[in-house]
Amino acid sequence: METSEPTDHRGLQVLGPDECNQLLSATPIGRVAFMHAGQPTILPVTYAYVNHGIVFRTGVGAKLEAAARREVMGFEIDDWDPAEQTGWSIVISGRADLVADEVLIAEYEAMGLPEWVQRDRVAGWVRIAPTQISGRRLT
Amino acid sequence: METSEPTDHRGLQVLGPDECNQLLSATPIGRVAFMHAGQPTILPVTYAYVNHGIVFRTGVGAKLEAAARREVMGFEIDDWDPAEQTGWSIVISGRADLVADEVLIAEYEAMGLPEWVQRDRVAGWVRIAPTQISGRRLT
Repeated sequence: METSEPTDHRGLQVLGPDECNQLLSATPIGRVAFMHAGQPTILPVTYAYVNHGIVFRTGVGAKLEAAARREVMGFEIDDWDPAEQTGWSIVISGRADLVADEVLIAEYEAMGLPEWVQRDRVAGWVRIAPTQISGRRLT
Repeated sequence: METSEPTDHRGLQVLGPDECNQLLSATPIGRVAFMHAGQPTILPVTYAYVNHGIVFRTGVGAKLEAAARREVMGFEIDDWDPAEQTGWSIVISGRADLVADEVLIAEYEAMGLPEWVQRDRVAGWVRIAPTQISGRRLT
């Protein structure tokens, strides 16, 4: 490793806030983790990073219920290059909430986010307000 | 949608067991979800799908501790084509365990799995035994 960037206890390079913000803005999909039936569950989402919040659509189901309860969710994005065997990841923790503000909802709809949930099944928008953002790179 | 394949409540195509097995065997990285400090947390892992189990290396830390407690973990793989706006995901739930069998460990080491954790920080191998495998495709 040529850089003198800080590493964590696993020996991975720590990404700074600017790089995390850039990657969060440029990545099309992420995954949310939440408790469902008492067990940690992961689901993929197409998301946007808006005003330092993670926003995504959800249909009726476990994600919506967890957000309605304002639970803490995990969120993650990553990339992996199989040829180079290098990658990075950003891991977020933050409280989820259902977006009720019609102005914000209109703003999110206008972004034209691709849909992992089919439009006719969409029940609402969830926003995760990050309290912790942790980026790592394996080189 | 031209197929008559089953869809779930979100309108996504359900992947069959053979397709799930094929994708689990062909994908280099996944993510595990587990409870850390009382909150659902996601971390990326390079993994292998061996004898219907998810196996990955881990260093000292939260993943190792959760596995040592034999907790139920979530596991997820996905792929997303930004141009086509299509994707698939497989979501797994199962109990984690630390692998103690030296023969199995030697077998896993011999696979030459790329390392998200640096080799000198590796503390053990974790195996998730899936009790539920759920695959979805958005077309």
